[in-house]
Amino acid sequence: MARKILVTGFEPFGGETMNPAWEAVRALPDAIDGAQVAKVEIPVVFGRAPEAVEAAIERESPDLVLCVGQAGGRAKLTPEFVGINCADGRIPDNDGYQPAGEKIEPDGPDAYFATLPVKAMAQAMSEAGVPADVSYTAGTYVCNDVMYALLHALATRHPGVRGGFLHVPYATEQATHLPAVTPSMSVPTMTEGLRVALSAALAHEEDVAVSTGITH
Amino acid sequence: MARKILVTGFEPFGGETMNPAWEAVRALPDAIDGAQVAKVEIPVVFGRAPEAVEAAIERESPDLVLCVGQAGGRAKLTPEFVGINCADGRIPDNDGYQPAGEKIEPDGPDAYFATLPVKAMAQAMSEAGVPADVSYTAGTYVCNDVMYALLHALATRHPGVRGGFLHVPYATEQATHLPAVTPSMSVPTMTEGLRVALSAALAHEEDVAVSTGITH
Amino acid sequence: MARKILVTGFEPFGGETMNPAWEAVRALPDAIDGAQVAKVEIPVVFGRAPEAVEAAIERESPDLVLCVGQAGGRAKLTPEFVGINCADGRIPDNDGYQPAGEKIEPDGPDAYFATLPVKAMAQAMSEAGVPADVSYTAGTYVCNDVMYALLHALATRHPGVRGGFLHVPYATEQATHLPAVTPSMSVPTMTEGLRVALSAALAHEEDVAVSTGITH
Amino acid sequence: MARKILVTGFEPFGGETMNPAWEAVRALPDAIDGAQVAKVEIPVVFGRAPEAVEAAIERESPDLVLCVGQAGGRAKLTPEFVGINCADGRIPDNDGYQPAGEKIEPDGPDAYFATLPVKAMAQAMSEAGVPADVSYTAGTYVCNDVMYALLHALATRHPGVRGGFLHVPYATEQATHLPAVTPSMSVPTMTEGLRVALSAALAHEEDVAVSTGITH
Repeated sequence: MARKILVTGFEPFGGETMNPAWEAVRALPDAIDGAQVAKVEIPVVFGRAPEAVEAAIERESPDLVLCVGQAGGRAKLTPEFVGINCADGRIPDNDGYQPAGEKIEPDGPDAYFATLPVKAMAQAMSEAGVPADVSYTAGTYVCNDVMYALLHALATRHPGVRGGFLHVPYATEQATHLPAVTPSMSVPTMTEGLRVALSAALAHEEDVAVSTGITH
Repeated sequence: MARKILVTGFEPFGGETMNPAWEAVRALPDAIDGAQVAKVEIPVVFGRAPEAVEAAIERESPDLVLCVGQAGGRAKLTPEFVGINCADGRIPDNDGYQPAGEKIEPDGPDAYFATLPVKAMAQAMSEAGVPADVSYTAGTYVCNDVMYALLHALATRHPGVRGGFLHVPYATEQATHLPAVTPSMSVPTMTEGLRVALSAALAHEEDVAVSTGITH
Repeated sequence: MARKILVTGFEPFGGETMNPAWEAVRALPDAIDGAQVAKVEIPVVFGRAPEAVEAAIERESPDLVLCVGQAGGRAKLTPEFVGINCADGRIPDNDGYQPAGEKIEPDGPDAYFATLPVKAMAQAMSEAGVPADVSYTAGTYVCNDVMYALLHALATRHPGVRGGFLHVPYATEQATHLPAVTPSMSVPTMTEGLRVALSAALAHEEDVAVSTGITH
Repeated sequence: MARKILVTGFEPFGGETMNPAWEAVRALPDAIDGAQVAKVEIPVVFGRAPEAVEAAIERESPDLVLCVGQAGGRAKLTPEFVGINCADGRIPDNDGYQPAGEKIEPDGPDAYFATLPVKAMAQAMSEAGVPADVSYTAGTYVCNDVMYALLHALATRHPGVRGGFLHVPYATEQATHLPAVTPSMSVPTMTEGLRVALSAALAHEEDVAVSTGITH
């Protein structure tokens, strides 16, 4: 039976009028390497965002889930290695909620590693000409909330489904009103990177053994 | 009579296999707002680069000259405000020459300001969704060599011709093998920015009076 | 009975002739707020570094352990929130070993949170005029190896002992031969920051509930 | 007869309560290599700042003038190579004035190069363990206003007096409330750098012929 991929992207937040994560996701093809692609936009709200992801998992029964969010200031596409059991907002979410270091799952472990092959994904994007690197922090905002809750849900309630998170930079258009040094990426480049990354995730059950570590 | 624009872009240097400046220039349309566009690739060599620019000026008799170069590490398209009478290379040029603080023109003034409307150009690019900012240093390498020598040539030998320089970031493809924080821009975005900037340069004989200064 | 603090700092690595972590640690006073301070220099070697830390714990029987390492490129003192079960070296360690994504503890959890009050420590340093921020990634090199292994050792073999890790920037002297944009900090400023941070760690059994999160 | 040095530093601006430029200058010794050191605090106001410098020149009759300002965001001490004939403020000065690209001297040349040996000064600071680099833009704010007007005054009204400008980073204390990536430097390190730089300026009538250029 054909495999199915669920890809989510966030609505705008932080005063922006667009979110490149959702723009990049919505432009993905409806099938990648024979796998069907379901796309869902989710809110930038602690708790409600992971609920929307799990509702989509129950509706779509995917084999693989990739949630995508914006990391303004980064220069590359960055598959995330780890999600942590901590919700801490330097700015309020889109419902006005601003946690100060709460547990996402009171009885959950401190962290979960992504179950997608993040190194193979970064490598495949780079080889396709799309700047990419593995990241070792997804922050503590709604992106990490979604990543940790997704991996907790998959580990405890959806055995066999693999999942992870990927951050995208600001879109080119957003950088026009930001400081001169702010990196950005065109949305078509992001979409091509996501397509290649998902293809690599389908192809690799296990990650490749190359070093992508960071000294600190 | 129809106006004519001369646009130059550099060959690759510093170990790279492409130079986004030339890639962006070569993809420009052959006419912008009714003005004919002549495109010339020039070498990354002190002295020989400005000679190639001046030979093209004599051949093409343009009304307006824009030289384009790569500024790896910048995040935006940056029309340059000033070229200085100083050649100083942290790396050798493509002929192996590495000056340590020589005058470009022994009897020339310390600097020339661009005679293109750099603020109007940056503003027009930003409004078109292309990240842009006025820059107040073109460095001391072959880019500045071309800018200073061009403005000296226009001031002393080609009255009435306006000229300037514009730096572009790394192309998206180049950033794949560079550190995670390295900004880049897609070549089609650069070409669109150049087209809009040249249109603004044609439209504004005088620059607009908005602040684009930098605190330091 | 008087409390005891164990503080460790690394030897030089990566071609440098000094390590500001050890320089800052060795200059600490022998007592802080009545607690005795034991200082130990440890090697930049996967596996051997955490062994040296645990040997010192067994020898000194501290109430509180803070390991300190260099994070070249950072601008502030950064108490680390989390250590992850992953050893991955972009460069070899001082014994020439370069893991490519191995588990530090084959049966350990994916991560441990520091058991020191990292927010209170960052806040106290800032109030004392020393730039500080909580960090949410300790990387994947020997610093993280020490942090994860320390927290695993404390959780499984040394109940009641609290521990954590703190990264320091390059020392002022090191930055002279590094690129113009490289941040650094004077070693006396680091030592003063460490002293204030350890004082805060002694004073706070529980961390303060302020937001120090990062958006991504 | 003993030589005399005039060193100026700015008052606070931009919402800060201290200016590290003046703090570093005021802590200089009263004599360097036998030359007397006169120190003057000047306002962050276009026009009035260079007037204060010239009044001090007339009062003190120095052989050498170094004006010092803050360049928040830089990581090193940066002697400036060139001042340009342009006043352009991204923020208003301390009198509320915000020029949008005016000439500083209506009939002055586009730029003046510093007449201090900036390369020798940067080299001497680095050798003394103080991070330093030559800078090729002093911006367009009051710092550049002072630098350009100083060099114009020396060239036209004070023959034989050498002059220049040097930018300092944020002080360590200022960075506590700035973003995590903001570089800073301790004021004692700045003062030591200034002392060494002034010593080098006294020793070198001509600059050294080493490359300190920037690619862009």
